[in-house]
Amino acid sequence: MPRYKLVIEYDGAPFCGWQRQADDPTVQGAIEAAVLRFSGQPGRLTCAGRTDAGVHAIGQVAHLDLDREWRTDTVRDALNAHLRPQPVAILSAEIVPDTFDARHSAIRRHYRYRILNRRSPAALTRAHVWQVPWALDADAMHAAAQRLVGRHDFSAFRAAECQAKSPVRTLERLDVARATMGLHAEIVVAASARSFLHHQVRAMVGTLMLAGSGRLSPDALSDILASGDKRRCGPLAPAAGLTFVRVDYDEIGK
Amino acid sequence: MPRYKLVIEYDGAPFCGWQRQADDPTVQGAIEAAVLRFSGQPGRLTCAGRTDAGVHAIGQVAHLDLDREWRTDTVRDALNAHLRPQPVAILSAEIVPDTFDARHSAIRRHYRYRILNRRSPAALTRAHVWQVPWALDADAMHAAAQRLVGRHDFSAFRAAECQAKSPVRTLERLDVARATMGLHAEIVVAASARSFLHHQVRAMVGTLMLAGSGRLSPDALSDILASGDKRRCGPLAPAAGLTFVRVDYDEIGK
Repeated sequence: MPRYKLVIEYDGAPFCGWQRQADDPTVQGAIEAAVLRFSGQPGRLTCAGRTDAGVHAIGQVAHLDLDREWRTDTVRDALNAHLRPQPVAILSAEIVPDTFDARHSAIRRHYRYRILNRRSPAALTRAHVWQVPWALDADAMHAAAQRLVGRHDFSAFRAAECQAKSPVRTLERLDVARATMGLHAEIVVAASARSFLHHQVRAMVGTLMLAGSGRLSPDALSDILASGDKRRCGPLAPAAGLTFVRVDYDEIGK
Repeated sequence: MPRYKLVIEYDGAPFCGWQRQADDPTVQGAIEAAVLRFSGQPGRLTCAGRTDAGVHAIGQVAHLDLDREWRTDTVRDALNAHLRPQPVAILSAEIVPDTFDARHSAIRRHYRYRILNRRSPAALTRAHVWQVPWALDADAMHAAAQRLVGRHDFSAFRAAECQAKSPVRTLERLDVARATMGLHAEIVVAASARSFLHHQVRAMVGTLMLAGSGRLSPDALSDILASGDKRRCGPLAPAAGLTFVRVDYDEIGK
């Protein structure tokens, strides 16, 4: 019973998130339906990170066990054919050992958050950015972000419905940089960690927005983190701006 | 009667091109309707380049005469409010002399064409790329492209319905470069000239695709150009991959 590792890209806009639901369209549901049509077998996917409704991915990873060994190119192309015209694409399929688990073998997850920082609304990137119409100070956001890097109790940046056993996470990277092209002024936040709490990236970005607006000093951010009180953090940044970029696995993890 | 210069971003997907039509949605029609609702006046726009159906813009320029002098921020914000929720955004409005003409004062137009060069379909960028599933040689495309740079009769790369008086144009730049991020393999073509013939950029990109597929040498591209025979050029690259990036004006041109 071979195990396949799939790398997956999707537009989160039309989906009610990754996780299969009885009545609503989800990414997992779409791919599992394609697996059934392709192989005749009701395959179940396990993914590296269950994204919320509206969140995009360019490098989600999932594993899948199939009854027989298909060529990896066949698995990729057949799933893509059956997924059409839904905005989900299997970028690659490879056979991995049974010990590989897309969720538990992951050693690092990378997310990117895009803020469109201009007065005019987004016309071309509407479903992929958070538009903040007043000027943000990206350097101040980056400085504040460094207070969150490291091993901390992130209870202040955690969804009420988060199912993780512990609120302690090690944030390896939280970089904020301006990426301006002509009148298209973007601020990009890059976040990396072994794992994140539910809503952690979006809660951190919403709080960094306050820092970039001059409403929160780096010290105030440290205080919020230490308080563990999520009523003190900023607004939850909208799902549309978030993209799940990549998952790292070590060779032993496979 | 003040003249306003507008810089405009739009998603071309839902529109039948720039130019106003009686029954179909167009970018010009959408903005002129917003002008009427905002000012009570039936303003007419003149743009730098009338894009085809499906072609996007991040820096289209148009001019507009209004009966009274509004604050430029008011013009921008009011038009954006009336354009909502259509994917058209006025990025800036400024008052310019009567001698400024968005079309005739332009000294350089910049276009970008995005090719998604991978086997898997586009999930996130569907309406913004041309997906070519076999491997393209971007270096070969760039080498071939240089045969088109300069002053030439571009009849071989011209739409039958092109209304330009002369098929001679001076192509200032045609650069092809690979922009790969993880499994998202893009090839970007950047084209700059004072002006282009109708369909010229898309016809050049379609022909460069053949060069990148090993089906056309740089010499063959020179032959096609010299022949002036558009039956010999490659397929017309799809509109979705094309974006009108920027227009240059000199100070005197204003």
